[in-house]
Amino acid sequence: MAERGTDILVIGGGPAGVAAAMSAQNTYTEKKITLIRRESAAVIPCGIPYTITSLEKPEDDVIPDKLLEGKGIQIIVDEVLDINERSAVLKGGNVIDYDRLVLATGSVSVLPRIEGIELDNVYSIKKSLDFLKKFKIKAAKSENVVIVGGGFIGFEFADEILKLNKNVTIVEKLPHCLSSAFDDEFCEMAESEMRRIGAKVITGRTVEKIEGKSKVESILLDNEERIPTDLVLVSVGYKPNVELAKKANLRMGTSGAIWVDEYLRTSDHRIFAVGDCAEKKGFLTRKPVMVMLASTAMAEGRLAGSNLFRIKVIREFHGVLWTFSTKFGNLSLAETGLTERAAKESGLDYVVGIAKTADRHPGKIKDATQVFCKLIFSRYSHLLLGAEIAGGKSVGEMINVVSVMIQKGLTDMEIDTLQIGTHPLLTPSPIAYPLINASADAILKWYKS
Amino acid sequence: MAERGTDILVIGGGPAGVAAAMSAQNTYTEKKITLIRRESAAVIPCGIPYTITSLEKPEDDVIPDKLLEGKGIQIIVDEVLDINERSAVLKGGNVIDYDRLVLATGSVSVLPRIEGIELDNVYSIKKSLDFLKKFKIKAAKSENVVIVGGGFIGFEFADEILKLNKNVTIVEKLPHCLSSAFDDEFCEMAESEMRRIGAKVITGRTVEKIEGKSKVESILLDNEERIPTDLVLVSVGYKPNVELAKKANLRMGTSGAIWVDEYLRTSDHRIFAVGDCAEKKGFLTRKPVMVMLASTAMAEGRLAGSNLFRIKVIREFHGVLWTFSTKFGNLSLAETGLTERAAKESGLDYVVGIAKTADRHPGKIKDATQVFCKLIFSRYSHLLLGAEIAGGKSVGEMINVVSVMIQKGLTDMEIDTLQIGTHPLLTPSPIAYPLINASADAILKWYKS
Repeated sequence: MAERGTDILVIGGGPAGVAAAMSAQNTYTEKKITLIRRESAAVIPCGIPYTITSLEKPEDDVIPDKLLEGKGIQIIVDEVLDINERSAVLKGGNVIDYDRLVLATGSVSVLPRIEGIELDNVYSIKKSLDFLKKFKIKAAKSENVVIVGGGFIGFEFADEILKLNKNVTIVEKLPHCLSSAFDDEFCEMAESEMRRIGAKVITGRTVEKIEGKSKVESILLDNEERIPTDLVLVSVGYKPNVELAKKANLRMGTSGAIWVDEYLRTSDHRIFAVGDCAEKKGFLTRKPVMVMLASTAMAEGRLAGSNLFRIKVIREFHGVLWTFSTKFGNLSLAETGLTERAAKESGLDYVVGIAKTADRHPGKIKDATQVFCKLIFSRYSHLLLGAEIAGGKSVGEMINVVSVMIQKGLTDMEIDTLQIGTHPLLTPSPIAYPLINASADAILKWYKS
Repeated sequence: MAERGTDILVIGGGPAGVAAAMSAQNTYTEKKITLIRRESAAVIPCGIPYTITSLEKPEDDVIPDKLLEGKGIQIIVDEVLDINERSAVLKGGNVIDYDRLVLATGSVSVLPRIEGIELDNVYSIKKSLDFLKKFKIKAAKSENVVIVGGGFIGFEFADEILKLNKNVTIVEKLPHCLSSAFDDEFCEMAESEMRRIGAKVITGRTVEKIEGKSKVESILLDNEERIPTDLVLVSVGYKPNVELAKKANLRMGTSGAIWVDEYLRTSDHRIFAVGDCAEKKGFLTRKPVMVMLASTAMAEGRLAGSNLFRIKVIREFHGVLWTFSTKFGNLSLAETGLTERAAKESGLDYVVGIAKTADRHPGKIKDATQVFCKLIFSRYSHLLLGAEIAGGKSVGEMINVVSVMIQKGLTDMEIDTLQIGTHPLLTPSPIAYPLINASADAILKWYKS
């Protein structure tokens, strides 16, 4: 019994869902669009760590509803129980008929099986405003904080909690933190910066047990080391939220996310899936990969929204090119495409180009920071395959220069003849522009070999 | 009578010459390379304004000689009088035989015919360390400074001299400052920021007369306004330095610079010209244009250096894509390709896309600055033709993202499906990334029209 109907229904209020709804509204101005989400407010996922210190209050980390409502998109706060038969059944009792459905149900934290993980003051991140308010107060009240998992999110939270003058310990089970995204030399820079700003960084160790009566009191590592703590944040990964899709018998991908074709269509051609819940194919290798980035989710949402009824926007798709950046202490790090480790593991014959310079010129300009840039090229195809950059805040946009280069298939020789812009107060010197000089370095290596 | 011989001779020690010498050394490791320059030190041209305040001393704005000498490139400080017959005749008496010659003789200030321009304390910029030392002292001793010419260099000097707490007046004869590079709305932002930091900005007025006995005392405008001053900086443009080339009967271009082919070869196939002294063809229009940017000079120097004996590096050349950026007060501005004014004047059918957002996300992150982005697309070819961006320091790299897009011929629809990276502390939000949203805005305009 349909109480209400809509042309386009989007489930999920995160970046993918918002992008899909807005793009659909731009493209299909006559259609009725409805977005359903569980939370009363749509938290900006990448801003979550910054609700601790950098933002005055968690409410500042919210996607404003007027972005959608101002364009006539209806927002319903409710939980969807079922999506079969072109109808969404809501927990609140309503049923909404739809013509096209976009699943943007996102991802949820993975909880490792550690004894004591159910104790009080042991948390994993939830993308909920209520959770963030509570966690901010907990962080302020604690003295000794342990973060389990040395990935981006762990590092960003550590940076923020250190600003509250707390003792922070990061425990990473792999030999290096951030090693899913960076080669060892960059991981070492990151760990050393994290130590410089005051965190204890423990690598190559697992947490055997979380200890305490009702509240957590300490954690026990596999080397018998016991670390007293009154707050634990477990951040070891996310998994796609695919409950609804499974219930609706949509095809699942081998990665555990919802299978989609090149245009984000699921096995039901009226249902699309975008963002963390949708399977991604990796750039160049085209194998299923886990990429959970708001920027990737946005690109998918935008594309799906345009193409809901007809394919209006063609994409020349080489797979998902993950591009990310982060900052803690004074170090900004960015990565896109393949690392050297990934190139090696993929069996690629590659050449590495390296460049080091200041991000201002001359280097004595006051806010100059050293930039270290590593590019990976295919030795014989000469294509740019990946980049890692460490430096100041400008690496956040510099990695996007690389991202465009990779997506457009630039070779080392093309980068060698590229025209770029420079300014003393804003960029590295034209003589030392790191993307060009790292390409030149790579060229020299195969040219002279 | 050749006292010394060299395989490759580079005349000029600026960015173009240095780039050519370094690139030649990388490519032709067995060749002897010699660089001759007039000045004892090679000043970094774009850093010149910053020798006033931002750098401790003018000596900090120098390209270190070890960059060349460390690679075995010989530096000679002398003046070249003649380059005929495969020999360079030096003022110091020596003659150097060469096999290949690279002219990187740069540009010199244009001096307008104004009565009184020869008075003491009236200067135009010279790319010389001695000049910069003298001018820094003069600026410190003066109280009322007039800058004739409201271009980049005038604005950058004004910003620096204002930091010395001087009274600064900028006089621009066109209706807007910076109008050779920006559309009116950006020029107005620039003028208003310049006024906010304390300069008097006068537009649409010419200087009739520079007055004083031996030293300058005032300037007289064409509206009879008299401005008392004890220091005048005239910065109304540069012209290519082509004396040597003319003496050697090399073909000259219609712009007054040295004619070169697509590989920077002059009419004498053993002589190359790069940088400000070499003629440029504009991007897309292919007409001769005056572009005097270190980044452009570098790209040319690098290409010529690789191709001196054989064409080793092919460039797919669509003309010189000027990309520049600047900063004064708290405003950073950047531009590449065509402005809307240039598109109109070139008779192009174009669509404009606009986006406004913060350069961090959420916008309440402390160092967030508003970004205003304008993109110009061909209406029917859909190609990106130009961009103007105003905002914080990240526009310096963001414009390079655009620069790569234009050089690789991206369309609005391709930008719509582009994958980029974002981070709260480093970039705009993925939902509002200005290059993508401005493209989407342009698409909407032709899609709905």
